[in-house]
Amino acid sequence: MSKIPVGILGATGMVGQQYLYLLLNHPWFEVTYLAASPRSAGQKYRDAVAGRVHFPGILEAAGDLIVADASDMDAAASAQKAGTLNFVFSAVELGDKEATKKLEEAYAAAGIPVLSNDSAHRWTPDVPVLIAEVNHGHTGIIPLQQKARGWDRGFIAVKPNCSIQSYTTPLYALIQRGFQIKQLIVSTLQAVSGAGYPGVPSLDMIDNIVPYIGGEEEKSEEEPLKILGSIQDGRIANAQGIKIAAHCNRVPLTDGHTACVSVLFGDKKPTIEEVKEIWGSFKSLPQELELPMAPLRPIIIREENNRPQPRRDRDADKAMAVTVGRIRPCPVFDLRFVGLSHNTVRGAAGGGILNAELLHRQGYIK
Amino acid sequence: MSKIPVGILGATGMVGQQYLYLLLNHPWFEVTYLAASPRSAGQKYRDAVAGRVHFPGILEAAGDLIVADASDMDAAASAQKAGTLNFVFSAVELGDKEATKKLEEAYAAAGIPVLSNDSAHRWTPDVPVLIAEVNHGHTGIIPLQQKARGWDRGFIAVKPNCSIQSYTTPLYALIQRGFQIKQLIVSTLQAVSGAGYPGVPSLDMIDNIVPYIGGEEEKSEEEPLKILGSIQDGRIANAQGIKIAAHCNRVPLTDGHTACVSVLFGDKKPTIEEVKEIWGSFKSLPQELELPMAPLRPIIIREENNRPQPRRDRDADKAMAVTVGRIRPCPVFDLRFVGLSHNTVRGAAGGGILNAELLHRQGYIK
Amino acid sequence: MSKIPVGILGATGMVGQQYLYLLLNHPWFEVTYLAASPRSAGQKYRDAVAGRVHFPGILEAAGDLIVADASDMDAAASAQKAGTLNFVFSAVELGDKEATKKLEEAYAAAGIPVLSNDSAHRWTPDVPVLIAEVNHGHTGIIPLQQKARGWDRGFIAVKPNCSIQSYTTPLYALIQRGFQIKQLIVSTLQAVSGAGYPGVPSLDMIDNIVPYIGGEEEKSEEEPLKILGSIQDGRIANAQGIKIAAHCNRVPLTDGHTACVSVLFGDKKPTIEEVKEIWGSFKSLPQELELPMAPLRPIIIREENNRPQPRRDRDADKAMAVTVGRIRPCPVFDLRFVGLSHNTVRGAAGGGILNAELLHRQGYIK
Amino acid sequence: MSKIPVGILGATGMVGQQYLYLLLNHPWFEVTYLAASPRSAGQKYRDAVAGRVHFPGILEAAGDLIVADASDMDAAASAQKAGTLNFVFSAVELGDKEATKKLEEAYAAAGIPVLSNDSAHRWTPDVPVLIAEVNHGHTGIIPLQQKARGWDRGFIAVKPNCSIQSYTTPLYALIQRGFQIKQLIVSTLQAVSGAGYPGVPSLDMIDNIVPYIGGEEEKSEEEPLKILGSIQDGRIANAQGIKIAAHCNRVPLTDGHTACVSVLFGDKKPTIEEVKEIWGSFKSLPQELELPMAPLRPIIIREENNRPQPRRDRDADKAMAVTVGRIRPCPVFDLRFVGLSHNTVRGAAGGGILNAELLHRQGYIK
Repeated sequence: MSKIPVGILGATGMVGQQYLYLLLNHPWFEVTYLAASPRSAGQKYRDAVAGRVHFPGILEAAGDLIVADASDMDAAASAQKAGTLNFVFSAVELGDKEATKKLEEAYAAAGIPVLSNDSAHRWTPDVPVLIAEVNHGHTGIIPLQQKARGWDRGFIAVKPNCSIQSYTTPLYALIQRGFQIKQLIVSTLQAVSGAGYPGVPSLDMIDNIVPYIGGEEEKSEEEPLKILGSIQDGRIANAQGIKIAAHCNRVPLTDGHTACVSVLFGDKKPTIEEVKEIWGSFKSLPQELELPMAPLRPIIIREENNRPQPRRDRDADKAMAVTVGRIRPCPVFDLRFVGLSHNTVRGAAGGGILNAELLHRQGYIK
Repeated sequence: MSKIPVGILGATGMVGQQYLYLLLNHPWFEVTYLAASPRSAGQKYRDAVAGRVHFPGILEAAGDLIVADASDMDAAASAQKAGTLNFVFSAVELGDKEATKKLEEAYAAAGIPVLSNDSAHRWTPDVPVLIAEVNHGHTGIIPLQQKARGWDRGFIAVKPNCSIQSYTTPLYALIQRGFQIKQLIVSTLQAVSGAGYPGVPSLDMIDNIVPYIGGEEEKSEEEPLKILGSIQDGRIANAQGIKIAAHCNRVPLTDGHTACVSVLFGDKKPTIEEVKEIWGSFKSLPQELELPMAPLRPIIIREENNRPQPRRDRDADKAMAVTVGRIRPCPVFDLRFVGLSHNTVRGAAGGGILNAELLHRQGYIK
Repeated sequence: MSKIPVGILGATGMVGQQYLYLLLNHPWFEVTYLAASPRSAGQKYRDAVAGRVHFPGILEAAGDLIVADASDMDAAASAQKAGTLNFVFSAVELGDKEATKKLEEAYAAAGIPVLSNDSAHRWTPDVPVLIAEVNHGHTGIIPLQQKARGWDRGFIAVKPNCSIQSYTTPLYALIQRGFQIKQLIVSTLQAVSGAGYPGVPSLDMIDNIVPYIGGEEEKSEEEPLKILGSIQDGRIANAQGIKIAAHCNRVPLTDGHTACVSVLFGDKKPTIEEVKEIWGSFKSLPQELELPMAPLRPIIIREENNRPQPRRDRDADKAMAVTVGRIRPCPVFDLRFVGLSHNTVRGAAGGGILNAELLHRQGYIK
Repeated sequence: MSKIPVGILGATGMVGQQYLYLLLNHPWFEVTYLAASPRSAGQKYRDAVAGRVHFPGILEAAGDLIVADASDMDAAASAQKAGTLNFVFSAVELGDKEATKKLEEAYAAAGIPVLSNDSAHRWTPDVPVLIAEVNHGHTGIIPLQQKARGWDRGFIAVKPNCSIQSYTTPLYALIQRGFQIKQLIVSTLQAVSGAGYPGVPSLDMIDNIVPYIGGEEEKSEEEPLKILGSIQDGRIANAQGIKIAAHCNRVPLTDGHTACVSVLFGDKKPTIEEVKEIWGSFKSLPQELELPMAPLRPIIIREENNRPQPRRDRDADKAMAVTVGRIRPCPVFDLRFVGLSHNTVRGAAGGGILNAELLHRQGYIK
């Protein structure tokens, strides 16, 4: 059986390379189309990324593909008609939210579904922000999105910011079991790969931390509300009654975002043992469907008091699991814990691929 | 005028060396007595620290002093009688709280005041835990301590844990101006020098963080309550009505502890502008007395959104100031900010020296 | 077909854990016996390593094995008789060369071949120091070793120091093609995992390097001579005519030793193109035998001028390949290049396993 | 007595800020003129550097100065006539060697001496490349330079690349005592501040090294030859008979370049004791003249085998001394040692200031 041909927009950047790397040998998808800025267009991929290859094996697999101009819709439409481009992962870095929105819409209008890493469409009411284990039901908005915009088989779905993976799934698991969450105070310790390449200067990260990441706290406070929300009247309405405060820090690490979380529940409060039981046994639709990129256990509990640690735990279960530890009472709120997830896999390309697998099994991507 | 002769217990360790380094050229105090474990006793200081000298200039100043055994009370008493030992800074690392208590009490009983870095006596009710700008009034318990224990001129005073300096002084400044603090959630990012030498293995700190420091969260939650408390019936009673939750993390830095703080006030809440005015203008007794080690401004405000940063701000004002930044509203509580202080200077030896200067001016150390 | 049962001495240390990790799912060998110090003996492996687990999956595989005392030869002999211990990898850290020698000899005398990571026996004349691609022929000394010592099926073979892998194989490839090497000046930049755990203090490795590693320069200068030598009169005689000078530095990295090498050839000097051709096409006996741990290409050439880099190249081909780059003329000698190899895989446990595979195929391990 | 007014070209960059920082409170020079790119021109200095201030105190001292356009020669000439600009330190980063040459020549032609950090004029035959302790005599070419170019009081003098300070002065001290140097193989471990800000991406420097710095090896091999050369026929002729090979590596450090050096002498070879005696007693003209920025001892010897270390030794004697250690025989050449110097102080702004002090005392700068 032939694989589904997929394109990567922004294929020369670090996230684009990560998509390509994770899709080497994917059982369902095959990368057949690489697009980037006009500067790279027309070159062989190996030449376009010369001197900044971040992952092994990608040149061997795709070095001879000719890079297309991501804004060249004729090229994309031709590929789509030729049967060599069924959908795209978008990792463009235009630095302009409106231009990004328009580009993604152009692909969708051309009948090419877009799974985007960008934040441009995260607050578009009929665009789902997906964590496959949490709000897989939000894909139900896609037909409404298509209808409202007159799109046939194209659509836009996005993944959330990389900073929220380590606590959103654990919180969802508790909510699903009936424990209302009222307040959340989170401090994150985020790796430099989250800023791309070249990204953070080394002079800021040797013997130093930076207690600020532009826009990150707002995303960390607001995106979980949409993800935990519900479809109402053709739009995704935020979850109500949850307040989140985030302190986001850049720390000297390559990969892995850690979050220190204090949680205030509503009247019904789980015991520490219940929390562990809920997290340890949590499974969701991606696990039931046995999606290739799904971790066997979406939440892994470490009992040692000095875990999770980014270097030792970020790669757990294909780097797709969230690892939690230090589950203990909070003297101010109810519960404290530390969550960790791999920011460029679970929080970026890996999460995007898992979303694509879900959408394929749900029939939205063919 | 001759200087006051002072000893350092635990002089070969990193904090002991830091004391020696900071006391080079001190206007009032002169290091005349170095004591350490029996292993080092009897050696020249330069031989006892060979291969693990952390600070410049200390061998030139004190390399030829013969190291005493810190547990040899006869030696200490002789020095005291000979007029070459008026008080001691204690930086011993016995790893045994009861033994440490006894050792410190033996010096006090021998008429030699002890200013300790150790946590052993922090919860002894009549021992003050001093941050000179905050609870200088707690030195008033010393005569009661001396009387209760039958000590003449000896006494014990201690400094708090290095993790709390960056937020306790700012909070005190707000309390002093009438803003009650009800709840505090703090996440710290702490430097490796806080664990001494050899301390944290490099394999734990390269491309990694460790979300746990043994005993640190308890100290961070409880010590501020004693410091903000008051003398009642011959003991220091904790401040009431404040709840603190701390998440303590070890991060790959040499020096400088950073805290991300969310604060819930009582009914009376300051505006962001009031907070800045209060912190920016804060001065206390050490500033009035112009103590040599006192920073001109105990709290420095940085307005840039990416500060304070440990490497760039920890050394502000002799490394004795607390630098705060990112002063902004908290979506869950009332106020958020980031505080930074140098853990081995302000949070250890420098803070101890400032306490000694205060006690000297108050007449307790002569 | 059943697998060959193998033991690990020093199983709780970092190298011991690395052996266990690399042997998970090995096609020929199965870890059945774990031994360590008396402190760990008698405990379940999971308890003996609690709080210092460096690799994933090892507890799931071996957590319930009871740790033996490595010095308990009765236990080893019983296991050997019971058919559950055919040979051992030794990663003990006794800190005493004579005691280590005796321990390894006791196993060999008991009929249990020893493949050791320790330096104790590296200069024993009839013990081969093996890099499987270079001096596989040195295993021919084993029968002589056995005969001289009256051992039946036991013997001792060792692997060299982790600092020399990145240049010894490339140099051998040139020698093998007729280019004599006269002088070598090497500077290494070595990762902290080379010192084990806890190993190097983080205060030495944050914003710092240490231009010294005890004993490392001597090993780097002398061990290649034995490896490049030949069997003469029942002993391995050093290669003649080669002089090596090494500068060994510890740098802030987790894994991967890099060497900057300047080479002076004899009269016959290869061109840069010849060097690249020789290295790029180099294969040896492990490749011919298709040993499971053998890299397909023992030497990988990177053409970019900023490679090899430890983080991006150390894991090439199961972390068993040497990656070389910056192959260029030397203004003082003839040739300059940069070599990189993974110190705990190629340079320690992985190299040891490859040696065992070779010895198995040669009939020495059954 | 009033101070000599000095300008800084490229004042907003990291080296420009370092000049400003080191000149706070300089006894002879006072910064009165700050110039940078057109982008910064016309702004207050504090606004031009907002968000990228690397050093404390510079805004307090110079924050209200209006930044000039460095290419605006009218502004410079006016300042010169007004007596507020006698000479300039140039730390421009034009990225164009020809444009840099022309800019520096324009200042010199306008009667404003230029002390440059840039490499543009290092190979101009009548421009001296100065290390004040080594080739102070090369300033004798200035009158020839002025005459040849028709300049009145203006001239150009430059400082060498930051990578060579740690070995050039030690080698000069040996040469001066009659020991000819024939061959030198050097491996450097260089800090990230050498690449400026933003400079090296943190993704290249966390858990990694980069064995390449563009252009650095050529500079390291050739610049010492000019510095050790002599004035002949109106130009500086390279020293003859010395061959240098350099391997330059970028390592994860903020400041401090380390060099591992092997030296081959001519027939006359010093003993290790002679080397130590020569280096330990070395003084030169800057020390005799007691120039403010001159270290008391240009070469400091550390006897411990694990020194020099960048973080612990780079700041020795105002960060202007070279610290050497591990002085020992080389098995291939004659002598091995490790040298360390602070790259942005001794190797950049501090070295430039020392040169200016020398030129002032020699009457070239008034």
